[in-house]
Amino acid sequence: MLKLVIADKAYSSWSLRPWLALTQAGIPFEEVRLRFGSPTYKQDFREQSPTGKVPVLVLEDGQRVWDSLAIIETAAELFPDKGLWPANPGNRAHARSICAEMHAGFMQLRSNMPMHLLAKFPGRGWNLAVQADIDRVEAIWRECLQKSGGPFLFGNFTAADAFFAPVVTRLDTYVAQVAPDTRAYMDRVFATEGMQTWIRRAREEFEFVDFEEPYRRSVHG
Amino acid sequence: MLKLVIADKAYSSWSLRPWLALTQAGIPFEEVRLRFGSPTYKQDFREQSPTGKVPVLVLEDGQRVWDSLAIIETAAELFPDKGLWPANPGNRAHARSICAEMHAGFMQLRSNMPMHLLAKFPGRGWNLAVQADIDRVEAIWRECLQKSGGPFLFGNFTAADAFFAPVVTRLDTYVAQVAPDTRAYMDRVFATEGMQTWIRRAREEFEFVDFEEPYRRSVHG
Repeated sequence: MLKLVIADKAYSSWSLRPWLALTQAGIPFEEVRLRFGSPTYKQDFREQSPTGKVPVLVLEDGQRVWDSLAIIETAAELFPDKGLWPANPGNRAHARSICAEMHAGFMQLRSNMPMHLLAKFPGRGWNLAVQADIDRVEAIWRECLQKSGGPFLFGNFTAADAFFAPVVTRLDTYVAQVAPDTRAYMDRVFATEGMQTWIRRAREEFEFVDFEEPYRRSVHG
Repeated sequence: MLKLVIADKAYSSWSLRPWLALTQAGIPFEEVRLRFGSPTYKQDFREQSPTGKVPVLVLEDGQRVWDSLAIIETAAELFPDKGLWPANPGNRAHARSICAEMHAGFMQLRSNMPMHLLAKFPGRGWNLAVQADIDRVEAIWRECLQKSGGPFLFGNFTAADAFFAPVVTRLDTYVAQVAPDTRAYMDRVFATEGMQTWIRRAREEFEFVDFEEPYRRSVHG
């Protein structure tokens, strides 16, 4: 069976992407969770990943695939009938474009509004550069949803929705002002079985990790 | 025919990646070159690309594919027999992992040693964080070359070599100290017909663009 190595569910935005894509597609995998709070966490991550970062997908023959985008492409090849990418070639090219854009960009949003599934930080991290990233995210989603008719970016849930899922949680955590169609899409992503499961487990396994918490010193604020 | 929208060949590292991958694979395309030195360059880029950045691949039906990684994946689907990715599935997963790692990382190397094909800046831009990126690049190349036996990362030239080609030029431009096996691989990349053509055209079309030149004020230094 495939093994997916991930980190703390409250914090690890890159882990959420392939976990949610594989889960929503019904692709079975064994989950291996590393902990940011482990005293040996750097070594733990280094043992699982040549970059010292997760996620990593371990194939049945032991081959390691690191980085969320490489994981999605590899899984899409292994399970061509699971709809990880949109079936229509034009939509697939579009989906890959927005995922690659997300993968290499949105630095301001990502660094100033780090993912945190179990807290609310209204207004924190906001600045004009973050807003430019948020504007672009809304434009990407709007174009896709208007073209597909929804409920997800390309109709059915695909890897593209999974790739933007951490942004969905950030806009919620930091209570960003977004248009009604954006909020409605966010609600649909939150309502998926995959996101519900991820969030429930994030709550069960939660450990406060200071270097993942720029906006508070303890769970009490 | 496919259209590939790119920018100045001396400077545009992201343009080089898909241009070289498609060229070396023998996939025909029409080249559309935008110029950083155009007084309307921001608008020119915006007209061709939803992100205002190149490269962009325009498919025969007009669909735009932005970002170098999405371009490679889309072209690999359109031309499955051209060997853009390694044929062996394990090698393909490995190739995708290192390309994705490059795509989202190596920020210190990329920002401190911007690509410049027609100048030499020995020692400029170097710092310890840049060196850590260089060390990782050398480790990636060495692992691939030892496994494949060369001459390229996965034997024949693939998109993975094209993805690292801008790094090959940076290590040369900034005269980075690298191991003999690294230098030999760099020389093999420089010797490809694709790189030779790209560099020749870079020379022919060159215009000095101040915002692409952190290390000199004119072509004279």
